[in-house]
Amino acid sequence: MEFDTIAAISTPMGEGAIAIVRLSGDDSIKIADLIFRSIGGKRLIEVPTHTIHYGHLINPKDEQVIEEVMVSVMKGPKTFTKEDVVEINCHGGIVSVNRVLQHVLAHGARLAEPGEFTKRAFLNGRIDLSQAEAVMDLIRAKTDRAMNVALGQMEGRLSKLIRGLRQEILEILAHVEVNIDYPEYDDVEEMTHKMLLEKATYVRDELRKLLQTSQQGKILREGLSTVIVGRPNVGKSSLLNSLVQENKAIVTDIPGTTRDVIEEYVNVRGVPLRLLDTAGIRETEDIVERIGVEKSRQVLKEADLILLVLNHADKFTKEDENLFEAVAGMDVIVIVNKTDLAQQIDMDRVKELASEHKIVTTSLLEDRGVDELEEAISSLFFAGSIDAGDMTYLSNTRHIALIGQSLHTIEEAIDGVEMGTPIDIVQIDITRTWELLGEVIGESVHESLIDQLFSQFCLGK
Amino acid sequence: MEFDTIAAISTPMGEGAIAIVRLSGDDSIKIADLIFRSIGGKRLIEVPTHTIHYGHLINPKDEQVIEEVMVSVMKGPKTFTKEDVVEINCHGGIVSVNRVLQHVLAHGARLAEPGEFTKRAFLNGRIDLSQAEAVMDLIRAKTDRAMNVALGQMEGRLSKLIRGLRQEILEILAHVEVNIDYPEYDDVEEMTHKMLLEKATYVRDELRKLLQTSQQGKILREGLSTVIVGRPNVGKSSLLNSLVQENKAIVTDIPGTTRDVIEEYVNVRGVPLRLLDTAGIRETEDIVERIGVEKSRQVLKEADLILLVLNHADKFTKEDENLFEAVAGMDVIVIVNKTDLAQQIDMDRVKELASEHKIVTTSLLEDRGVDELEEAISSLFFAGSIDAGDMTYLSNTRHIALIGQSLHTIEEAIDGVEMGTPIDIVQIDITRTWELLGEVIGESVHESLIDQLFSQFCLGK
Repeated sequence: MEFDTIAAISTPMGEGAIAIVRLSGDDSIKIADLIFRSIGGKRLIEVPTHTIHYGHLINPKDEQVIEEVMVSVMKGPKTFTKEDVVEINCHGGIVSVNRVLQHVLAHGARLAEPGEFTKRAFLNGRIDLSQAEAVMDLIRAKTDRAMNVALGQMEGRLSKLIRGLRQEILEILAHVEVNIDYPEYDDVEEMTHKMLLEKATYVRDELRKLLQTSQQGKILREGLSTVIVGRPNVGKSSLLNSLVQENKAIVTDIPGTTRDVIEEYVNVRGVPLRLLDTAGIRETEDIVERIGVEKSRQVLKEADLILLVLNHADKFTKEDENLFEAVAGMDVIVIVNKTDLAQQIDMDRVKELASEHKIVTTSLLEDRGVDELEEAISSLFFAGSIDAGDMTYLSNTRHIALIGQSLHTIEEAIDGVEMGTPIDIVQIDITRTWELLGEVIGESVHESLIDQLFSQFCLGK
Repeated sequence: MEFDTIAAISTPMGEGAIAIVRLSGDDSIKIADLIFRSIGGKRLIEVPTHTIHYGHLINPKDEQVIEEVMVSVMKGPKTFTKEDVVEINCHGGIVSVNRVLQHVLAHGARLAEPGEFTKRAFLNGRIDLSQAEAVMDLIRAKTDRAMNVALGQMEGRLSKLIRGLRQEILEILAHVEVNIDYPEYDDVEEMTHKMLLEKATYVRDELRKLLQTSQQGKILREGLSTVIVGRPNVGKSSLLNSLVQENKAIVTDIPGTTRDVIEEYVNVRGVPLRLLDTAGIRETEDIVERIGVEKSRQVLKEADLILLVLNHADKFTKEDENLFEAVAGMDVIVIVNKTDLAQQIDMDRVKELASEHKIVTTSLLEDRGVDELEEAISSLFFAGSIDAGDMTYLSNTRHIALIGQSLHTIEEAIDGVEMGTPIDIVQIDITRTWELLGEVIGESVHESLIDQLFSQFCLGK
């Protein structure tokens, strides 16, 4: 495909040693050549591909120096976008990099839309849609595991699996066609029927397996929304601090993070927790006070994990009991804190109400029990020692929805075959499954969806 | 010189398309080669200099993929540090870039100290000290003008001027030596005396000229500390908002900016203003209330520019008069706001108190007068239309101090010559001038100073 030449700042904004302005498109090298003077007098239009050149960005009108730069020239198709790509490395700093970008735009490039470089990589056929989506996940990854999932997806692990399943479905469809076109061959029908069930069952099982990874995959990608609840003075803030201190906070220094909504990300043994910050803690105080109020329950309902804190050195109260009621049916870890003080709490009652939930006793004051708590969190969501590098996780919400739908349609098809539904009706469900899986890798997607997907990217990618 | 191999993240931290981990030192290429697998099977130790290679960062133990990267190989001496430099471009994102850095450190590189790359460029003789300092100024530049100053300094404009002056002084010293060694030649003394005065006067005049640029240079570099004062309800917050809105705020999205100290940078016609934010406005309310309190006066004293706001629609009060007293002797612009309302203020009294200060009338409500105010600010500090690109500005505090001292010593020398002080006494002052100027470009500097200077740099530069 042919597109115009785009440019954007590809490094994060802020003070740093180096910033990059990236160009992609047919005129990339021509534009760069126009405004660059190499120290040795080389012309960029004449240099070999994948080479680096030191010199100055200048104003071609008066040869005035704009910046000191290193320019990388990469000719397509062996580039990120498969187009000609030029990267101008300039001194970091907001004024410097903006000036370089403005200069490039003034000499023929167009400002890239968010995600437009990756979109071109997709439209030019270098990567499929699930790989393109993984690029963004990789950038936003908050833990090593999340990054491994994204990396695997970017390397095409999910694509390969989906392509394999689509191939299976295509074979089913081919046989169904034979069956519809030549209904007179009875033995063909028998054959198809048996094979169809076998293959469809295989596809269904694979989709089920994949879907089972989605909870963990989604947690890895988006973090586990975690709420700490408990009566006042049981140690909620200490728990928050303890989790934040023991584990490096992940996103403290990302620019563009909305400062109003304060969330604290911590990495607990590879599980990213999105913890409600002090503001949230205050909010949970309210929850205790207004327990039973519908809105407060709603806050809890939206959480993936509840850390319910009790006071070891105080009687078990009606309020504590209400808390257990409010979090019924959710993933809960019960924390009995203040074991450094004499026991007052009725542990039998706690065990009874906790039922199958894990109970951890801690003394946050003396820094005891935090390891056990982290272990409990980790094993609750990653039972066994799963290495994200080993398998394909489904982590993207769009993918999860599509795989869910395709599982549904293949199950419908299997039911149809078993109930003796006419084969041309069954064919509709099978074809739909094939299409839905195609949407995951971008082989049957609307342009508007593509536009919308890439617009979520950051600038310069 | 020979150093070990250092590595650091050279792009700002945050979410971006691309991040760079940079290595410098003899083992850079060897380390990169160990952990990199090119798609085409190329070995980095064998590739030509200044070339770019696509592939994967892997764990050499099990060949597991760590990241998808582009690696730039640049062999010394034609590099930023004059050493072998490798830049690993990986996907932006905190986890990704940290993982790459950790991997590089695990395979033989040492984490660079802040500014260590630039320090090596200096120690290896690629740039002098004033150029190294300009690198940091360039990154921190907040306006185009500030960037031009830094760029000029980095290109060696200040260095060249200083070297020229030092050469002049060397010639003086050479003649002085002749005079001391061969005092019997009377005509030589006469000659030296006249020439000495001439040359020393030239040096003095040049140093004076340079020092005259220092106020503007410092403003360009550090911003103009600006305080808005006025009685409650005269429109101080409106003024702040108006200046911020009309001019893009400069440093809103820099990570690492201390969030506690809220300052707003705005670029008013190339002059960076460091405005006290709402918190500051509140503080100035206090100033009005506690006018005369020493500490409040101190806040004003530290400002470079006072914007004194009066109310056009209210009587001129004793409080207003106190304000004029408090800012006596400072750079003040008087703003008479609320011209949309009927006049109550005694303008004759205002003009009398303002004396030589500029008075601007505004209606911030109707957005009138802001242009005139900006013009007033700009012309107060940049009388005439100075283009920072045209001349050498002295902007660095260290340089200003050194030039100030060297001006002093050369003046002492001139006085000495005129008063007939023995030439070997005069020689001391001249030599000291030569040494002080050497410190600007780093030719006579202590190692501890160098360490301290570079430690102010950002990581990865």
